[in-house]
Amino acid sequence: MSTNYQKLTLKLEEISRLSGIMGILHWDQEVIMPSGAAESRAKQLGVLAGIIHEKSTDPEIGSLLEKLSQENSFNCFEECNINEARRQYELETKLPKNLVMKLAELSSKGHQIWVKARSENRFSDFVPVLTQLIELKKRWAEYVFPKLKAYDANIDIYERGTTMSDITPVFETLKKELIPLIRDIQVSDYNPESSFLTGDFSVAKQEVLGRRISEEMGFAFDCGRMDVSVHPFCGGSHPTDVRITTRYRNDNFIESLYAVIHETGHGLYEQGRMKEGRDLPASEALTMGIHESQSLFWERMIAQSLAFCNGYLPLIKETFPKNFRDISAEQLYEAVNTSEPSYIRVEADEVTYPMHVVLRYEIEKGLFDDSIEINLLPELWNSKMKEYLGVEPPTDTLGVLQDTHWSGAAFGYFPSYTLGAIYASQFYQTLLQDKPQLEKIIASGNLEIIREWLNQKIHQKGRLLSVPDLVKEVTGDNLNPTIFLSYLKNKYRKIYRLN
Amino acid sequence: MSTNYQKLTLKLEEISRLSGIMGILHWDQEVIMPSGAAESRAKQLGVLAGIIHEKSTDPEIGSLLEKLSQENSFNCFEECNINEARRQYELETKLPKNLVMKLAELSSKGHQIWVKARSENRFSDFVPVLTQLIELKKRWAEYVFPKLKAYDANIDIYERGTTMSDITPVFETLKKELIPLIRDIQVSDYNPESSFLTGDFSVAKQEVLGRRISEEMGFAFDCGRMDVSVHPFCGGSHPTDVRITTRYRNDNFIESLYAVIHETGHGLYEQGRMKEGRDLPASEALTMGIHESQSLFWERMIAQSLAFCNGYLPLIKETFPKNFRDISAEQLYEAVNTSEPSYIRVEADEVTYPMHVVLRYEIEKGLFDDSIEINLLPELWNSKMKEYLGVEPPTDTLGVLQDTHWSGAAFGYFPSYTLGAIYASQFYQTLLQDKPQLEKIIASGNLEIIREWLNQKIHQKGRLLSVPDLVKEVTGDNLNPTIFLSYLKNKYRKIYRLN
Repeated sequence: MSTNYQKLTLKLEEISRLSGIMGILHWDQEVIMPSGAAESRAKQLGVLAGIIHEKSTDPEIGSLLEKLSQENSFNCFEECNINEARRQYELETKLPKNLVMKLAELSSKGHQIWVKARSENRFSDFVPVLTQLIELKKRWAEYVFPKLKAYDANIDIYERGTTMSDITPVFETLKKELIPLIRDIQVSDYNPESSFLTGDFSVAKQEVLGRRISEEMGFAFDCGRMDVSVHPFCGGSHPTDVRITTRYRNDNFIESLYAVIHETGHGLYEQGRMKEGRDLPASEALTMGIHESQSLFWERMIAQSLAFCNGYLPLIKETFPKNFRDISAEQLYEAVNTSEPSYIRVEADEVTYPMHVVLRYEIEKGLFDDSIEINLLPELWNSKMKEYLGVEPPTDTLGVLQDTHWSGAAFGYFPSYTLGAIYASQFYQTLLQDKPQLEKIIASGNLEIIREWLNQKIHQKGRLLSVPDLVKEVTGDNLNPTIFLSYLKNKYRKIYRLN
Repeated sequence: MSTNYQKLTLKLEEISRLSGIMGILHWDQEVIMPSGAAESRAKQLGVLAGIIHEKSTDPEIGSLLEKLSQENSFNCFEECNINEARRQYELETKLPKNLVMKLAELSSKGHQIWVKARSENRFSDFVPVLTQLIELKKRWAEYVFPKLKAYDANIDIYERGTTMSDITPVFETLKKELIPLIRDIQVSDYNPESSFLTGDFSVAKQEVLGRRISEEMGFAFDCGRMDVSVHPFCGGSHPTDVRITTRYRNDNFIESLYAVIHETGHGLYEQGRMKEGRDLPASEALTMGIHESQSLFWERMIAQSLAFCNGYLPLIKETFPKNFRDISAEQLYEAVNTSEPSYIRVEADEVTYPMHVVLRYEIEKGLFDDSIEINLLPELWNSKMKEYLGVEPPTDTLGVLQDTHWSGAAFGYFPSYTLGAIYASQFYQTLLQDKPQLEKIIASGNLEIIREWLNQKIHQKGRLLSVPDLVKEVTGDNLNPTIFLSYLKNKYRKIYRLN
């Protein structure tokens, strides 16, 4: 006779396995599916999504949760699974069906309209669907998180436990400190030499280099793969089946290498999940922000450090001897840490990226509290770009229309990127306190030590703690931009000879 | 208001798409899945199989079929879908659940026991599970095809419409004609020179060659892929997503090339399915035998012909100039058509292969009509090998334990291989009558003409006709071993200088 808890876990495991299958279908589509299969794949995805929805809203789950709420004496792992199941069940069942369908339909339609509007630089074509999507996500918020403000409810999907009241002061601090730093960098007389990063780099050699570094970081290739896709991502179907991708350019290997490192950071989080109950939600990655903290930790805190450049320049020289013959570690370090305002978020560096996020956050916030009129978005966007980054996009294609998120109703996602960057710097600071020899460890290539630390402190924790509790447990501090800002200011004032 | 027929097709399409997803998971597992993911993949497959079973036994399908049996005025495509749905629904629902579960359990257990028994050469270890599997498949037959003899019911799963009364006389004829031919070849003084097929062949060049020939046969790479797996197969998820595999050896390229051609034959059948209702059963490939007729048509009738050797030797010489410098088309033709009895079915050539199948057919037949005692199988196997092929396996590992089929309860599958070979020769004969210049067409590399003919005559027909009706429509004849035997006798008596 199985307990109610066991019955619940059987259902959760089934849903988890179906989601794993979904992961494989998506990976396959992005990486190796023949182009002619697009239509049939869309239909397969549709059927599977329908079944996952069916299973997730199974009334039997509701009744098990009801019974379990009368029971107690669960350990924290079981408790967490029950809470996660309840959250997910309520998210899926609190909505009236016609709202679910309208949202799905409009997101899909919205994406097509956005693609066209962006390519034709016609923001006005995107206005009607954007207006409707925001209205729907406001109604959605009332159903699923009636106690939260509408935008907080949207943020909660990606970064639960964090609200505008946490984010706004942090982002205000970022603005106060980063806008002047960005201006100073802009007017600096010094510009790091980075022309040696452009050249002729064999893709085969790039791949060997990327795999080598990914492996040294601890990525287990017997439980994962590395392939090529248009946009690098980390996907897969299970902690034993984690699939990262990158893309290669013949004339630039750094972009590809840092994509590998970034995605390996995500991949290590997935591969490093607790061994117990891997098909249960308590073992899953916590939030988008914490996921991003892992990828950015490796990409920025480790791989963009002088210690890493010192440690890995010999391997890079060995791989591309012609291009790097006379290059020093300091030169490499400066070249991979140039900062320059750009129109496009995904091309931004670590100093300017947060301003792209703050801008989007402020706009989303205003759209949800009705303080911003959608028609005026392009002007607002451009004036904020001017204010925060000192540049003004010449077209909406390069401005307000650049990101796909809104067209799919993914409001509240953007803050995760910068929260992740801040957490990464806080984690690094703690690691440095734990291991004062950290720079030597990095330079000697003993990256496994770092992975092990992240694994113990973060990956293994799954969803047992909330983000604030996890950050507190690891760092002893709350979300705090001070370390992040000191890191950026120290690093870039030095690189750009600003003192 | 949708009709009952439309409601049925929605359900069939859903099942078809889920089966497509299953196809991708299997392909992924065989081709690219990281080894560490085996356990989680097995669980994903289990969940998906359960859902497909659930959907296939949905009582709503039963009630729609009931209603549809009262309606009429369907066109032949609709009629076919209804009949296919009924057959499948009855197959899935006529069985008591405990028999379904016992069979699934015992097949899985049987496979493990067989793997061990084969590796340890202990047939007696396999006897208990084999005994139980046969008993279960006898009971299974009573439930699903009560009007058929038990072995006919098993055959019907793979080769419906064909029974022992069709097969036995054909196989008797094969024995009568092939046993002497095999003996004559064995004692012939002449042995074709084939040492030039062994050498050092770059895998990259083999792949280019294989793709080139697959493409010339008409395989659409925008609706398919070609990859590497341990055992070559043709899989995928849809006519727009057909995935063939091969394997490469450095010391032998012919094996890989003919695997590509064989699997391309299967792949063309799938890619060539009718454009209408591709997610409905009427469009699907007819039987295992007809599928095999397509792969063998290309592998044997086309690619093992002198015309093909004439046409493609220049390309082979261009690919491997050193190995083929002094080789003539006649030499290549003889080398790819050597015949020699072997213990192992999958290594057999086109002359000896049918005897491996006849042997298995006779044994399966005897197991199901209780005229054979399982304990005595090894002796029986070896004496039949001696009688039909003139060789006796030194171990059961190389004898009665060599095939995986029985361990998974796949009784009745073996005849399809040889039925396919016979149909292939009949189709070739008809094509030759249609296009008397056929050999010139082959030699000139206009393989597209051949694909187009097969497509019109067979691929496009889906399941609209039964196998006997299809064969009759294409060839004007029934299943008839005469052409197959003439083909083999003419070809091999000439190669082995037997006249």
